[in-house]
Amino acid sequence: MKKASSFRRVAILGPGLLGGSLGLALRRHRLAREVVIWGRRGEVARQAVACRAAHRAASSPEDAVRGADLVILCTPAETMSELVRGFRSHLRRGALVTDVGSTKREVVRRLSALLAGRAVYIGSHPMAGGERDGLAAARPNLFEGSLCILTPRARTPTAALQRLAELWEAIGCRVRTVPPARHDAITARISHAPHLAAAALINMVAHDDPGALDFIGNGFRDMTRIAGGPAEMWTGIVLSNSENIRGALGALIRELEAVRRDIARGSKSRLLAFLRQAREHRNRLRHHHS
Amino acid sequence: MKKASSFRRVAILGPGLLGGSLGLALRRHRLAREVVIWGRRGEVARQAVACRAAHRAASSPEDAVRGADLVILCTPAETMSELVRGFRSHLRRGALVTDVGSTKREVVRRLSALLAGRAVYIGSHPMAGGERDGLAAARPNLFEGSLCILTPRARTPTAALQRLAELWEAIGCRVRTVPPARHDAITARISHAPHLAAAALINMVAHDDPGALDFIGNGFRDMTRIAGGPAEMWTGIVLSNSENIRGALGALIRELEAVRRDIARGSKSRLLAFLRQAREHRNRLRHHHS
Repeated sequence: MKKASSFRRVAILGPGLLGGSLGLALRRHRLAREVVIWGRRGEVARQAVACRAAHRAASSPEDAVRGADLVILCTPAETMSELVRGFRSHLRRGALVTDVGSTKREVVRRLSALLAGRAVYIGSHPMAGGERDGLAAARPNLFEGSLCILTPRARTPTAALQRLAELWEAIGCRVRTVPPARHDAITARISHAPHLAAAALINMVAHDDPGALDFIGNGFRDMTRIAGGPAEMWTGIVLSNSENIRGALGALIRELEAVRRDIARGSKSRLLAFLRQAREHRNRLRHHHS
Repeated sequence: MKKASSFRRVAILGPGLLGGSLGLALRRHRLAREVVIWGRRGEVARQAVACRAAHRAASSPEDAVRGADLVILCTPAETMSELVRGFRSHLRRGALVTDVGSTKREVVRRLSALLAGRAVYIGSHPMAGGERDGLAAARPNLFEGSLCILTPRARTPTAALQRLAELWEAIGCRVRTVPPARHDAITARISHAPHLAAAALINMVAHDDPGALDFIGNGFRDMTRIAGGPAEMWTGIVLSNSENIRGALGALIRELEAVRRDIARGSKSRLLAFLRQAREHRNRLRHHHS
């Protein structure tokens, strides 16, 4: 992990799994002199202070961001614009603002416009968390070994991007930088459509033959793990990236229809080619990462 | 693990991942006085002896089964009938014969007919192995904690079924008993269709946007793990259970089309219901097992 310069005051809005884990990680790695946390339910923010994810619970978003040189939005994506509109006049001039949402095109467009001339906004997407949610699941090493995608725009100042990248690296992430639209195209294919496919798979078995669920093994358990993720959050994600996801689901359905046809025809050679191709791609993944 | 009475001589045909692991497990738990192994390539059977998965490598299937009170077929399903035709006249009368294949209806019908009046045949399906294959991946604890499905027929003698169940339990399996046709209906939904869905998912990304594979996280890795399984073996499995699998793939495609429609309509409530249902089913799995 690289050494990152520390921030004076970091404001975390949203004391859930990501917000709580960020607070714990920032404190463990001494990356902030003070971490201030705010939550819609004040009680959860106070719990975050009690479990040492922050030094202080703020009474309002405005109170949280006052004097902060870094603001991290960890609330549901659909609440972010309203939050920013509420606190932006209280921001320190030149503060760095980021978020941890799972889709980027819409949020980057909106928040960049709302913050123009007041703060530097850069989108972040730490790909960590999985099927757990809530402060109770927060841990300081949540981000270790995971990928964090940053989505600057053409006019984003390099120095701010560099500083943000170093922060994520300091808490254990590998960092990649891509434009917001490209981010959403990628995540539709490798995260959002797979999530829906896992949900479709488990719902299919539960509808058709619930008794079969008593016989599942590790393969099925691994394949459907992500379907255990928070439904409200995922609904928001899916609707904020709907065009890309529809494209990816369409391509997946076409693959499944082709293999179903090959089975109906008893075409051993085509099935073998399909499965070999998948195996090769899968094994290449294994070598690339971890 | 229950105590099982030991066998005098166990013949394992096929020194791959399952055959090798079975030999190691039988010896570790002292469930056989002698383990004899045969492989189409004599060299692999000799390697199995060298790594202590068997006491002796047999020169032929006939040589392997001679005097055995238990014969375990661990070869590809499509070779089993021919093997049995070749060795059946050399079987000890009343020997117990089983196999470890992943589909059961066809193989149980064929092998029961071939062995009628000579030996007691009962199908086994230990759901262990996953994406590795070959003797090199064999290990004595492969079966621990996994499910083994036994598929007796109506006329199968209870004592033989009991003895076989105790053997699998002794090496760490939970054992469930279902009729062969029911077995194939269940595994189509929880294993074979999910395998093809994992392969379709990875092939979809690799075709449409191979660069996206550089961004995958643990969710995608978990979901596609089973697609790393041996392609030849899986082609055989799929073709031997094609009707059930086509049904399960059809149901999965319908689920995916419904969710794609809901996204197109921006139907938040329907998406939320779909994802909540999946999450509930998934969490129930987590509590049931492990």
